[in-house]
Amino acid sequence: MSKQNRRDFLKKATVTTAAVAAATTVGAPAVHAKKTYTWRMVTTWPPHFPVLGEGADKMAEWIEKMSGGRLKIQVYGGGELVPPLQTFDAVSQGMVEMGHGASYYWAGKSPATQFFAAVPFGMNAQQMNAWLYSGGGLELWEELYAPFNLKPMPAGNTGVQMGGWFNREINSVKDFKGLKMRIPGLGGKLLAKAGGTAVLSAGGEIYTNLERGVIDATEWVGPYHDYLMGFYKVAKYYYYPGWHEPGTVLETFVNKKAWDSLPKDLQEIITTAAARSNIWMLSEFEAKNNTYLQKLINEHGVKLKKFPDEVVTTMRGYAREVLEEVGNKDKQSKKIYEHYLKFQKNVRAWAKISEIAYAKITS
Amino acid sequence: MSKQNRRDFLKKATVTTAAVAAATTVGAPAVHAKKTYTWRMVTTWPPHFPVLGEGADKMAEWIEKMSGGRLKIQVYGGGELVPPLQTFDAVSQGMVEMGHGASYYWAGKSPATQFFAAVPFGMNAQQMNAWLYSGGGLELWEELYAPFNLKPMPAGNTGVQMGGWFNREINSVKDFKGLKMRIPGLGGKLLAKAGGTAVLSAGGEIYTNLERGVIDATEWVGPYHDYLMGFYKVAKYYYYPGWHEPGTVLETFVNKKAWDSLPKDLQEIITTAAARSNIWMLSEFEAKNNTYLQKLINEHGVKLKKFPDEVVTTMRGYAREVLEEVGNKDKQSKKIYEHYLKFQKNVRAWAKISEIAYAKITS
Repeated sequence: MSKQNRRDFLKKATVTTAAVAAATTVGAPAVHAKKTYTWRMVTTWPPHFPVLGEGADKMAEWIEKMSGGRLKIQVYGGGELVPPLQTFDAVSQGMVEMGHGASYYWAGKSPATQFFAAVPFGMNAQQMNAWLYSGGGLELWEELYAPFNLKPMPAGNTGVQMGGWFNREINSVKDFKGLKMRIPGLGGKLLAKAGGTAVLSAGGEIYTNLERGVIDATEWVGPYHDYLMGFYKVAKYYYYPGWHEPGTVLETFVNKKAWDSLPKDLQEIITTAAARSNIWMLSEFEAKNNTYLQKLINEHGVKLKKFPDEVVTTMRGYAREVLEEVGNKDKQSKKIYEHYLKFQKNVRAWAKISEIAYAKITS
Repeated sequence: MSKQNRRDFLKKATVTTAAVAAATTVGAPAVHAKKTYTWRMVTTWPPHFPVLGEGADKMAEWIEKMSGGRLKIQVYGGGELVPPLQTFDAVSQGMVEMGHGASYYWAGKSPATQFFAAVPFGMNAQQMNAWLYSGGGLELWEELYAPFNLKPMPAGNTGVQMGGWFNREINSVKDFKGLKMRIPGLGGKLLAKAGGTAVLSAGGEIYTNLERGVIDATEWVGPYHDYLMGFYKVAKYYYYPGWHEPGTVLETFVNKKAWDSLPKDLQEIITTAAARSNIWMLSEFEAKNNTYLQKLINEHGVKLKKFPDEVVTTMRGYAREVLEEVGNKDKQSKKIYEHYLKFQKNVRAWAKISEIAYAKITS
């Protein structure tokens, strides 16, 4: 379209719209004069990263569709606009309007952030959702993020994660001694209790670190994602069950000022898109994990191994110690930790006679 | 507001809107002339029924909010506009635009509808979601409902249901002989195989039927809902685990013509609201069940009992027979049944080393 044509087109469009508006009477279509918002969302994931980044992309797409184009969100992979682990600060400071990640990345802001992502030997996806949506968990999370000018929402879940990739067998908790493993957050603290070294590596560096022997082991997500990461080429033993991340919540958060500037309809659209993203991500992982697990085993010779009971029991003991430490660091962490524990006790009593009892009669 | 005042107000509003529109230029707020839709949703639930009816109410509320009032949905309880079990026909025939229920109620239309609600000894909530959203299940469901001019969507889940209320102990499968139990769908067919009689009662009649001895037993949902229904006053034994409904999907459906008449933004709004309702309902049940279970046991003397292994094993055998029968009734049912089975096999292999293995180390 030439500049002149475009001007004519816009002029015509304006006139037409005005005519429609002038003709508005009772019963005729409502005419809304509404502002269009163009937002940016930074994420902790590589651009368009399977499921996690895809989920952020999809959420933005749903929001744009639902708002009829009134809220457009440009999604940035980690490092495209700010480094992955500056996502929280970038949104907190209002540099961009929205972020996407997992709250345990922000343990440096408050240890309590970890309770809203993954707790070793803690609640699974279904239970985390129950806590957040219907048990008062989300309100506590909002309280925790409020001083940072952020409004958080659950926006995804990985389900139970695998125990990780190891370049040697784990036959006893002693085998963790001296083990250098990429494992973030509370899981890393447990490993340290067992005499291992928790190494922090961004997603893109793990493969090389494992290949070069900088680390001996790594956890990641589950068979589908781990397959895409190619870890089977540099580690042979794939362990289950994961005890460190039993249902990791992915999050989205909005800068409070940006949120307050939105009309109510667009706020509701974001909230609802986040809930859809939550159920979509978990469904993707659940639907694909076994297919990729079989590929790993049958096409790539990966050895699927179960952690010995002794290892699990010892790590569970360490988990209690670590959680007590974290949950007593400050007043707010204590409040959240106690709320989490109380809800977990309740929901587990129910799981025992529902999900777990049912699993027993069908497996 | 008086009639004259209202006229003045509307006149003023029109003028103002026109002025805004006339002032529209590049960079200024966009002006949209959009139609307002007023729809009706009939449901299979009593009006504002806890969780199930509430979920329908909430979904309508979210849709209205997200659309800025452009799509208003009036929700009707079963019997308010049409009887509960005419929900499907009312929407199919275009009498109303939308419905809310559970697809096994429509087994009379096609036996395959049952695969989209609850399958005895079948998939749980998380697995059903994975099948529907990411495994091709929803596409099959759409295919099944298309000849009825309906577009279905998952919109809720009960989680694993309890085994039910009994006025006598179940010590062997022989105790099902002659037992009159309110249990719909495929579960009822299994009971019949065991020599019992499956009785159909609408929700509002179960209590009286149980009290008067018209039935000896009933299944319902889970502790929270069953408590509200008051069954503890007329039956003493409360059994687990439920084997008949391991993760019942609640549905919403839209008349195809009504759906096609909507602009894309409102379609996306409905789809997203249904997904939010799905995760919300399950969270409500999960968060509340144990509290009410404890009330039942501690305040009302209910005896919580576990079905003996022999009962479960026998019923599981019957389930295979019944599913083979249902899944081979016609070509489409066969296609859906085989797809369901294949997905179930896959997702269960994954559950064994994720959710189930994790449950074992934490319970």
